[in-house]
Formats: sequence, structure tokens, C-alpha cells
Amino acid sequence: MSETSAIEKAMLHHLDNLTKPRGSLGKLEEFCVKMAKIQNQVPPRIDKKGIYVFAGDHGITEEGVSLYPQEVTLQMTVNFLTGGAGINALAGGTGWELTAVEAGVAGELPPEESLKSTCRFIRTALGKGSRNFYKGPALTAEELQKALEAGKDLARDARERGYQLTAIGDMGIGNTSTAAAMLIAAGFSPEEMVDRGTGIDEKMLNHKRKVLEEAVALRKPAKTGEAIMEQLGSFDLAMMTGFILGLKGQGIGCVVDGFPVTSAAYMAFLIDRSVTDYLFAGHLSKVVGHKPVLDAMGLEPIVSLDMRLGEGTGAVIGGFIIDLAVQTARKMASFAEAGVSTSEQEEENY
Amino acid sequence: MSETSAIEKAMLHHLDNLTKPRGSLGKLEEFCVKMAKIQNQVPPRIDKKGIYVFAGDHGITEEGVSLYPQEVTLQMTVNFLTGGAGINALAGGTGWELTAVEAGVAGELPPEESLKSTCRFIRTALGKGSRNFYKGPALTAEELQKALEAGKDLARDARERGYQLTAIGDMGIGNTSTAAAMLIAAGFSPEEMVDRGTGIDEKMLNHKRKVLEEAVALRKPAKTGEAIMEQLGSFDLAMMTGFILGLKGQGIGCVVDGFPVTSAAYMAFLIDRSVTDYLFAGHLSKVVGHKPVLDAMGLEPIVSLDMRLGEGTGAVIGGFIIDLAVQTARKMASFAEAGVSTSEQEEENY
Repeated sequence: MSETSAIEKAMLHHLDNLTKPRGSLGKLEEFCVKMAKIQNQVPPRIDKKGIYVFAGDHGITEEGVSLYPQEVTLQMTVNFLTGGAGINALAGGTGWELTAVEAGVAGELPPEESLKSTCRFIRTALGKGSRNFYKGPALTAEELQKALEAGKDLARDARERGYQLTAIGDMGIGNTSTAAAMLIAAGFSPEEMVDRGTGIDEKMLNHKRKVLEEAVALRKPAKTGEAIMEQLGSFDLAMMTGFILGLKGQGIGCVVDGFPVTSAAYMAFLIDRSVTDYLFAGHLSKVVGHKPVLDAMGLEPIVSLDMRLGEGTGAVIGGFIIDLAVQTARKMASFAEAGVSTSEQEEENY
Repeated sequence: MSETSAIEKAMLHHLDNLTKPRGSLGKLEEFCVKMAKIQNQVPPRIDKKGIYVFAGDHGITEEGVSLYPQEVTLQMTVNFLTGGAGINALAGGTGWELTAVEAGVAGELPPEESLKSTCRFIRTALGKGSRNFYKGPALTAEELQKALEAGKDLARDARERGYQLTAIGDMGIGNTSTAAAMLIAAGFSPEEMVDRGTGIDEKMLNHKRKVLEEAVALRKPAKTGEAIMEQLGSFDLAMMTGFILGLKGQGIGCVVDGFPVTSAAYMAFLIDRSVTDYLFAGHLSKVVGHKPVLDAMGLEPIVSLDMRLGEGTGAVIGGFIIDLAVQTARKMASFAEAGVSTSEQEEENY
């Protein structure tokens, strides 16, 4: 306790000496305190930010729960590599290094040399998508362990790249169904977890809910992260879980994105509650189930822009604001440096 | 009507062809549509953003409504110039060119050559702060006109600098009192407009409310922007109003900051309701009175980070997200370009 408290106190002291009314940077000051605790230094620093976008396929799409064909996962992975996706523009505009991760994509990706990648690309040989969990377990125990280990490898990659802040994005047709099934199994209500979204009609929504509720009842995993992931998970989401667990004690923050990434973070949370010490919620997405899961982990979203694109697009925006907060705490002058008078009491503005 | 609708339709068509589920960039898509309408072009573009921070003094501080001494306005103006304030760090980190504007600062600023300015600086000779409106009108009719004209000159400056997006920040001890008095005179409730903030005690809050309510009753201006500003305004806030009015028809967006800047925007709104066509609310500040005034203008804040620093610090963050939205709409590949399959219906995620 004393060490954490000392860091927090030192960070607040640093912030209170800057030329602004006390506490007036609001949540930006909270982000600085959390990063100071993560890094165990005052003020914290962020020189390099890295986002990993995990692409993977989901066997549950066989049950007709998604309107997009499965091939879109592969096509969008190629789109990341050639720089045309939303995350390419948003990561570029907010100073994140982007790594696309093939984390169980079905189908054959084109050979690397033909792609002219504009971003880092990591291929795994985990498998060609998860199995249809309506019919049987999504992953074998061995597949799950390999996916978790592959995620931990990426946590090492993040440290080696020198990232002080990381973010996680998702791409995978059907990944909201996997996410919802895992969270229902963990105890969240099906009404909240299975969402209409935009465009999906009442009939399809009811079908999706029925499929997922029945699948959870059929697989009936124990309420542990590992059991849930084995029965109802996927390679990509399990890699994210492994990545988050692997960041523990590394002095690196991690920004989660929308509903699918948050479901993976929740699995990590079930395994080790302390992951929230270094997790941030980048944004609140438009998917209804997102908020209750963030609430359960005590994570407050940084922005709320009605986004529901995934890919880490919300995480890079929220994470950029963390970065901005840290830079601001480092660059501002103190009252003494600037020769500005202080007040003994505080007021709502200068 | 038809021209505006055609632009909106063309912008939505552009957005719907990008490789993402329809509407999935949420508010970012709304910002693109608004910028397209402001610029009358699809897609819009933002190459250069400029923020003007207006520093000015407020005679009402004589009545003991602020805990900070008036000299802080001048000291903080110098802090802007030497680069040590919050807005220097935040504008720098979000790609805004910063211009500090002396808009009625009491006391003598040091000679320019001694300051080694790190940002643009514009001095006006408008006056040494507004008069104490508890005792008489804050400005003469002539002073008000000069301040409005000086603001319009800055709108020309913005066009000449090539800014497609501008933002407004404030610095002035007592400016929340001026803002509250103007808004009470415009019909907003004193309970909402005069805020406790953090640190101001019950006794001082009651005093501030009493002073402002009595002052409004004594000055009793007609409910027009000009009459309110003459009786209860200030040089700096009137310059902001003139700046906003001067941007009309220039194809330039403008992001307002917290409570004081929003009060100036509301005066512009009283004079010409169409200003909201090119105004954005950068953030929702922690000052209680901010939201009802934004609501009255139909402006929705982009971020809500519990900030209450002023200086434009919220405006540059919110405005950065507008910029990001516009860059994203320009950079993303279309479905055809990327060879990605589409769905006839939409789903809540890929």
C-alpha cells in the first residue's frame, strides 16, 4: 500500500504545482496518476504507443448469426496491411504503431511479398478459426493454451518495442457472438449481451439470442476464464486475454476497445483481478452490452462517440488522450517557474 | 435547402462506401457531415487548425467574487507566450497553431522583445479590463463596438492564415462571473449559472450569486446580445462574440470551449441564430452552467473529461477529434478499392 500511495501522492503534488487551478484537468489528471502507478515513476512518460489488432474467425457464424460473410475477416486483414481500414487512419492520426495479428483467420492469406504491407504483421499458426460452439467446444485445451501463450509472446514483443502504452483491436466476423456467449456464461444477462445493433432485424436478433443461450446451456462451462474460453471462445479473443495477462508487472498500460476486446479483458479479469490496475477503457461503444462489462471491472470509458467499428478505433482515440495527459503534465510550467500567483483556496476557474 | 441536403447526401454516400459497417464511426461521421456543409465540399478537408486564446480582465472582481488576484490574468498571458500553460501543451499535442490575444488585460505586459514568445501574440488597445458592472455598465457602447470589430478582424486573420477549423479559449480572473451575469440576463436561472466549482465555499458561493443577481437587476439590460454585453460583458468575451459572427459564410468551423467561451457564443447566437451551423462544442466542462447553455444552442459536447481549466484546453481536444474524423474519411479505402464484400443488411459489427 505505502509504495502505491507514495507514487500517487507524488504525482498529485507534481500536478498541483502546475500553473492551473487544482484538479482542473479533471480526468486527464486521473490518467496521469494511473500511468505513474503503472510505471512507478513521477511524472510518467509515454514515448511510444503500440496497437495490436487481432484478426480471427468464429465457427459460430455457421448458425447464421452474422450478416457478413466470413471471408470479410480475411479481406479486412489484407485491408489493414495495405493501409485502407479505419484503424490505419485513426492509429496514424493519433501516433500509434500498428501491428496486425493473424490470430486464427480461416482461408489463405496472400503471400507476404505480394501485400506491400504498410504495417507490421504477425502470423500465427494457431488454426483456421474456432469451432462452432453450438455443436461442440470452440477450442481444445491445447489450442487454448497455445493461444494464451501466443498472446503472452506479444506482451514480450510490446516490451521489446519499447511501448509504454498498448491498445487492443479486434477484427472477426462473428466475434460479437463469441463475446456475448462468453459473457453470458460468466453471468451477464443475455438481454444485455446480445444486441440489436443497427440493421439487424427483430427476427435475426431473436435467432442470435436463442442460438447463444442454447449454446451456453449446451456447453455449460464452469465460471472460470479458462473453462469459458475453451467451450465458447476463439483464437483471437484468447490471444488478447493472454496478451493482457502477459503485461502484468511490465510497467505498460493497455487500452481496451469495444465489446469483443472487453470480453477478452473480462476473461483476463476472471483469471487475475489485478489486470484492471493497468487497463484503460478507450471508449464506450454503441453496443449495449459494453457498459455493464466495463462497469463490472470498474473501468470508466474515456470517450463516448457512438462508435461500433471495432479494430481498436475507439481504443486509439481514448489512448491518445492518456498520452496527451501525460505529455501535458511533463510540459507545463510550475507556479514558481512561471511566476504566477497562487490562491490558498481554490475557485472554479481562474 | 436543396444545396445543403445535396452536400449531406453526398457526404453520407462517401462514408457509406468506406470499408466499415454503415454508420459505425458514429459521431465521427456526424462531424464529417457538418464540416462538409460548412465547407460546401465532399469530403471536407482540414489542413490547418488555429486556436485563439482571449485574455482579459473583469471589473467585477472588485466585489470579491474570485479567489485569485487579478494579476493572474497578466501572469498567465505571459505564461502562454513563454509556452508553460496547459493550452500550450495541449494545442501543441493536437496540432493547433496557438495565438494569444490580449483582449483588455489590466496592468502592463512586459515589452514584446523581452518575452521570447513561443506563439503568435496579438495586442489590442481596447482597454484595461471591463468596469465593475455592479456599479455601472461594464462597457460603453463604443467600447463594445470596438471589441466586436476587433473580433471580426481576427476572423479575417483566421481566413488569411488558412485555418479550416478554429477554436476559442479564455483567460481572465472573474470571467465566469461575467459569463454568469450575461446568461442570467439572457434568461438562464441563477441557480444553474453560478456554480460552486471546487474549493469555493458555501458562503462565497452565496455572495457571488447575490452580487450577480443584484447586478443583473441593477443593469436590467434588454434581452439582446448587444444590450447584455454593454451592461454586463467584457472586452475579451465581446471579442469572442465578434470573432464568431465574423466567421459566418467563411467556410471555417469554430470549436467553443467551456462556460465563459460558451457565454460569448450564446451572445452571438442571440444576434444571429445561424452561428450554430459552424459551431462545435469541444467538451462539457465541470462547470454546472455549461450544459444548459450548450443545450439551448443545440450543441452536443464532443468529450466530457471533467475539465474546468479554460484556455481552450477542452476545445483543442474535441476539435482534434473533428480533425481526426475528417482525415479518416479521406484516407480510408472504399469497399471496391479494397475488394471487401458488403452485406445488403447491416449488423452491429462485422
